[in-house]
This record gives sequence, structure tokens and C-alpha cells, in this order.
Amino acid sequence: MLVVKKFGGTSVENKERIMSAVNRCAEEYHKGNDIVIVLSAMGKQTDRLLEMAQDINPNPPKRELDMLLTTGEQTSVSLMAIAFASLKIPAVSLTGFQIPMHTTTNYGNARLKKIETERVEYELSNRKIVIITGFQGVNKYDDYTTLGRGGSDTTAVALAAVLGADRCEIYTDVDGVYTADPRIVKNASKLSQITYDEMLELASLGAGVLHNRAVEMAKRYNVQLIVRSSLNENEGTIVKEEIVMEKMLVSGVACDYDVAQIAIIGLEDQPGVAFSLFRHLANHHVNVDMILQSVGRNGTKDISFTVTADMADITVETIKRHGNSSLKCHEIKVENDIAKVSIVGAGMITNPGVAASMFEALYDVNVNIKQISTSEIRVTVLIDQQHVNTAMNAIHSKFELES
Amino acid sequence: MLVVKKFGGTSVENKERIMSAVNRCAEEYHKGNDIVIVLSAMGKQTDRLLEMAQDINPNPPKRELDMLLTTGEQTSVSLMAIAFASLKIPAVSLTGFQIPMHTTTNYGNARLKKIETERVEYELSNRKIVIITGFQGVNKYDDYTTLGRGGSDTTAVALAAVLGADRCEIYTDVDGVYTADPRIVKNASKLSQITYDEMLELASLGAGVLHNRAVEMAKRYNVQLIVRSSLNENEGTIVKEEIVMEKMLVSGVACDYDVAQIAIIGLEDQPGVAFSLFRHLANHHVNVDMILQSVGRNGTKDISFTVTADMADITVETIKRHGNSSLKCHEIKVENDIAKVSIVGAGMITNPGVAASMFEALYDVNVNIKQISTSEIRVTVLIDQQHVNTAMNAIHSKFELES
Repeated sequence: MLVVKKFGGTSVENKERIMSAVNRCAEEYHKGNDIVIVLSAMGKQTDRLLEMAQDINPNPPKRELDMLLTTGEQTSVSLMAIAFASLKIPAVSLTGFQIPMHTTTNYGNARLKKIETERVEYELSNRKIVIITGFQGVNKYDDYTTLGRGGSDTTAVALAAVLGADRCEIYTDVDGVYTADPRIVKNASKLSQITYDEMLELASLGAGVLHNRAVEMAKRYNVQLIVRSSLNENEGTIVKEEIVMEKMLVSGVACDYDVAQIAIIGLEDQPGVAFSLFRHLANHHVNVDMILQSVGRNGTKDISFTVTADMADITVETIKRHGNSSLKCHEIKVENDIAKVSIVGAGMITNPGVAASMFEALYDVNVNIKQISTSEIRVTVLIDQQHVNTAMNAIHSKFELES
Repeated sequence: MLVVKKFGGTSVENKERIMSAVNRCAEEYHKGNDIVIVLSAMGKQTDRLLEMAQDINPNPPKRELDMLLTTGEQTSVSLMAIAFASLKIPAVSLTGFQIPMHTTTNYGNARLKKIETERVEYELSNRKIVIITGFQGVNKYDDYTTLGRGGSDTTAVALAAVLGADRCEIYTDVDGVYTADPRIVKNASKLSQITYDEMLELASLGAGVLHNRAVEMAKRYNVQLIVRSSLNENEGTIVKEEIVMEKMLVSGVACDYDVAQIAIIGLEDQPGVAFSLFRHLANHHVNVDMILQSVGRNGTKDISFTVTADMADITVETIKRHGNSSLKCHEIKVENDIAKVSIVGAGMITNPGVAASMFEALYDVNVNIKQISTSEIRVTVLIDQQHVNTAMNAIHSKFELES
């Protein structure tokens, strides 16, 4: 059996954690399994490297930043190979350059294009444990690239896909995927299984356990994912296409503070104005979410939408520059003290009353809903940040997720 | 004009030193010169990485150690490119993998085989400053290799050779090559020029300014080397084939504490014994220096020779293992508290009295000579470590090197 195991930064942050991961893999190796390991940089190393760069130049060129950051994973893979050698287990570390992992040229946020398997398969055929740098690759210029934050998950899933691995285990510092963040909802319970689609909605809503691109790729190539803790032997959560357990209406409640609401008040009501606005934002790489349009005063209309918090200023700037040419409005407002709270569940598709139950739960605890958006398996509300804890606990109870 | 500049670890150990090197190169860039920069790892980074590895495994596999150590130079080249960007000077960092710099497979002590120039020449043609990782390359398996300690000098000279650079500047924390170590001989003076051969003898004798392989390569490809300080604008020392100044008899006095004397007493006097001994040592990679053979008692002979201090124990072990099969002797002695003191000078070839003057200088200050070895441009004596300072000052005065 071939298993791909991905360990995050906290799982390799020091000698003790590295040895713990190594011992865990050694056990499985001795049972006869083939093992490919994907690593992130140690602990906060990526942040430290970023700080070093920004201390020299607040706007470091992205190409050079990738050159710098890729040293992080190279350090952790070589140290882990050195750790395996101390147990007399043959292991070999490989970088994105050596595989090679071909990516797009987009420094800082590249996408995997093609992963060669020859070298990895050769090493596995010699019963070596193969330890591969996550998060990185090389582009067509032979330059180092990175996949963006959390990209190591994507590397692991992509490797599992091209190597035809039997499963891909993502080791993290939590036990698996929970019905809600246990720091917010005390009696949140761990899910033993979840579908790709549910996981996708949860990841994009800030559950923070798995990188979204990794789940998308796992779904596309039908890679069985397991999210589990590197600190204990607990079972973790299996992410796959169909889950066999009795379907719950709602699998989990998630919140996301990384959001700002932009409201454009008193927009001139001419045909194509909204289209032109969002085309303009897209051209400037502003990703827009939760769009709401309403009728304003005197034949104008109001449009509001959300963006990630760090994009709020850029978004307003972009709209204003656009305004000089064609877009006329009365006022642009930005609201930051808000959060998204969502329920996710594959069972929702066939149960129209789910959204209503959620709104009822919020009404019961006096939380005001500012905006609503829904998908087939998700309902999201925008509320004030101060109400997040109350809201999540109320919703969690409403759907009896404690069990 | 194309100039290759190599900055050592102390010259890039922090932001201030990096910016100082960058400003220096910027000035030259703006004059219209093309610049290739070769960097070592920052400050003590290589040592720190080694410690991390050895903390996990006292005997880390060499392949993985090279994988780890090569991150050091990759970090410094990317940070320097980021520093150039802050001055709006186009720069690009490249690793041994990207050039590529092909080396032998010998991890930890690889030798350069071939350096591709296409990428570097392309970047230079776009008026970019090209910043290259010293000390590293890739072997035929696409594995990272290192050239051994001080290998960055070799990288710089090799690049200067293949690129046909007009000169190769080695920036260090001293002003150039001195007639003696200024910490030992107070009135030592800086040499403005020195020949490759003199530099080779000085480097191998512990002058410590330039890596020996770098000087050999500079001599072979006739690369003009300049050793100068990264801390000031002083002229430095030019190393080349023929020096134009009036030839001094002696260019400098050097000492080397990294030496142990092995004495094999009462060796059976049979034909081929000495040959067999040194063949055996060579087979075990023991480099032997300053061999002396003398007649002992009762038809035996004594053989003594020097090795580097760290090889003393291995050497004795190797001799003893050999002894079990064919080599018989009375006793093996190791002496550690000794040092080599040497004078070096191209002018010696035609002046037979130089060695005598050196011995006279030592006699005048009561320093006992334990062993002597000479080459065409060098005289070396083995003395007790406690006499090194006295000896060096006496010799320095004798040859009037203060001027």
C-alpha cells in the first residue's frame, strides 16, 4: 500500500516533533507500506524568512521571495531524512526542482501543472521513504515558485493523485474536522467522515483545517483524504466523495472573520452599471462574494458585497478610480467589524427547512442578520463580529451537533 | 568590463552588511560594468545548520547534509537580490541547480566539472546583476552537492574563468594578503601583489585568506584575483602569474597550528616497508606531509611525518590495523603541541641562502627546529607551538618585511 503523509509546520517545528513524526512513519514502513512524506517549513520559519525579506525591502520582488521561502521546506525535508538515517531507515529528500514539480510562472501563488513521477517511483522501488518539499515547484524558466499559503496540502494531494496512492493523510495539530471550532463551541464533536463538497465549503469559510485547492484536487482525482493529529493516534476525519454514515442535515458550523463589507450607496441606475463595476473589480483581481443589490432613493440603487479584509482598501481605491470615468455614486461605505457564519451539509439539498432553522436559532438569541447567501449545501449569514460566539453556539445546539 | 565579486559569510551576515555590499556593487553597476556576485551563507549559518543536523543524528548522511547546507547560500542570494530591488537595480539570484553547476558526485567535497553559462549570459545581457550561490552544485543524479569548506572562492574563480571575466574580487574581512598574520607580527605589512604560486603555498600553510582550490583554478585559467576588504575601500592584494614589482626574496611568513607529528620508531628495515605504509595511508585518505626517515637502532629505521591535527587518531589507528598484517615497529608516537612556520617567496628559487637566513633567525631567538621541509619557493620548519610568535617575529625582522 502506498500512503502519502503530509506534516505541517507545527509537526516538524523541532527535533522532538520531527522524531515523533519519523517514528510514526517508521512503524508503518516496517509493516511493508510505501511512504511518501510531504513537509511544510518548520514552525514559523516561513514567517521568519518573510520578515527578513521585508526588513531589507518592504516590497520584495515575488520571484526572489519564492527563492527565499523555498529554503524553508528544503531545510525540513533534509532534516527529516537525517532523522530517518538515525533509525537506519533508508530515506531520501527531494525538492520541487528535483521531482520536478512543474508550476505556472505566477510567483507567490503558482499552480501545479505537471508532476514527474520517475524519480519518486525509482526511490520507492528501492524501499526508500521519499520526503518531498511541499508548497513549491519550478516554472518554465527554471525559477523556484511557491503555491501560496497552505500549498503543502495541495502538493500532498497532487502527489497522491499522480502516484495513485491508496490514501493521503494530512497531519495537523487538531484531531480532525469538527462540527464547529472547539474554541468557540465547547461541545463541538469530531466528524468521522465528510464529503469533498462539505469540506470545500468549510475550508473556504475559514475552518482552516485543509487548504481549499487541496480539497478541490482531491475531489477531482478522487483521492481519499484523512485529516488527523500528529500528536495522538486518534482516527481523524475521512474526506471522500460519498459518506456511508446516515447523512446529517448539517455537518458543521463555521465562521470567518476575514471579511469586509463594501456598500456603494446611491449608484446611478443605468443598464450595465453593475456589470461594469464587477468586471472592473475582476480585472483588478478583487474577488467579490455575497453580492446584494437593492433599490435606493431617487431612482438610484445600492450595491453591497463582501471581500476579504485585506482587500477592503484596494477595493475602495479601485472603485474610486473607476468612478472617475463612468461610475457615479453617492457614497462608498466599508464595514470591518463583521463576520460570516455558515452551516454546511450535504443533507441540505433535499431539506428546504434548514435555512429557516438557522435563522430561527439566530432570532432566538437576538442576533441580527445583515446579509444572507446560500449554495446547495451551505447557508451563510453576515453578522456583527461581537455576536459570533453566541450565534455559533445557538446554531450548533439547534442542529444537535453535540452528539 | 565584467567583474565577479565574491562576498564571504561575514560580508552578508546581517542587513547592514548586505546593504553595504549592495551599495558598493551599485556604484560599479552605474559606471557600466557587468557584475556577477557569488555569496556564501550568512555569518555562521552553515555552522548552525550543521548543529541542527548533528543534534538529530551525530552522523548525518552526506547527501542529506548537502541538501540542508545548500539552503544557506540560497537564503543569502535571494536576500541580496531583494536588497538590490530596494535600490531599483535589476538583479536576479541563481542557485547551483539553475545555472547549472555540474559537480562530481562526492557529497560534502564535490569538485566542479562544468558550469553552463547560457542563463548567466542571458541575464547579464539584460543588464541584470546576477547573484549566484557559492559552494554548491548538482551532480549527475540531480542531487545537491557542496564543494567543501571555503568552496565559494572556487565557485567565484570558476565563474570568472568560464565567463571570461576581467577580474575576480574576493571580499573578506581583512585588507588583503599580509607578510605575516598581523595578530602575531605587529608590524606585518600588506602585499600589493603576489604570484599564484606564492599564494598557493601561503594558503596551504594556513594563511587562511583564500581557498587553495580557488588559487589553483585561478592559476590554471589565468584569472586575475583581487583579495580585499568588504569593510573599506583599500586596494587589496592582486594575485596573478607575474608580479611587476621588484621581487622580494620572501613575500611572507605563515604559521599553521593544524598539524600533528606521527613518529614510527623501530620500523623493521625491509625493502618496500615505507612504500607499503604510505600506500596504505593513501588508501585510507590520510594526506601525509613532511616525511622524514632516519636510521634507528639494531638495523631498524624511524619514520616521522605530519598530518592535519584532526587526522592524528585516524592515522595511528590505520597504521595499527596495517601493523597486524605486515608492518612491525617498536612504538608509534604522536606529538600535538607543534606548529609549522614557513617563509614563502618566488625570489627564493635563485637565492640559495634564504633557508640559512631563516634558520639563523630561529637560532638567534633559541627556537629549536624539529623538522625541515622545502619546496622551490618555500621553507617550512616544525617547531613547538609555544615558540610560534617569537619565531615569526624573528623571521619577519630578518627578511625586513616591515616596509
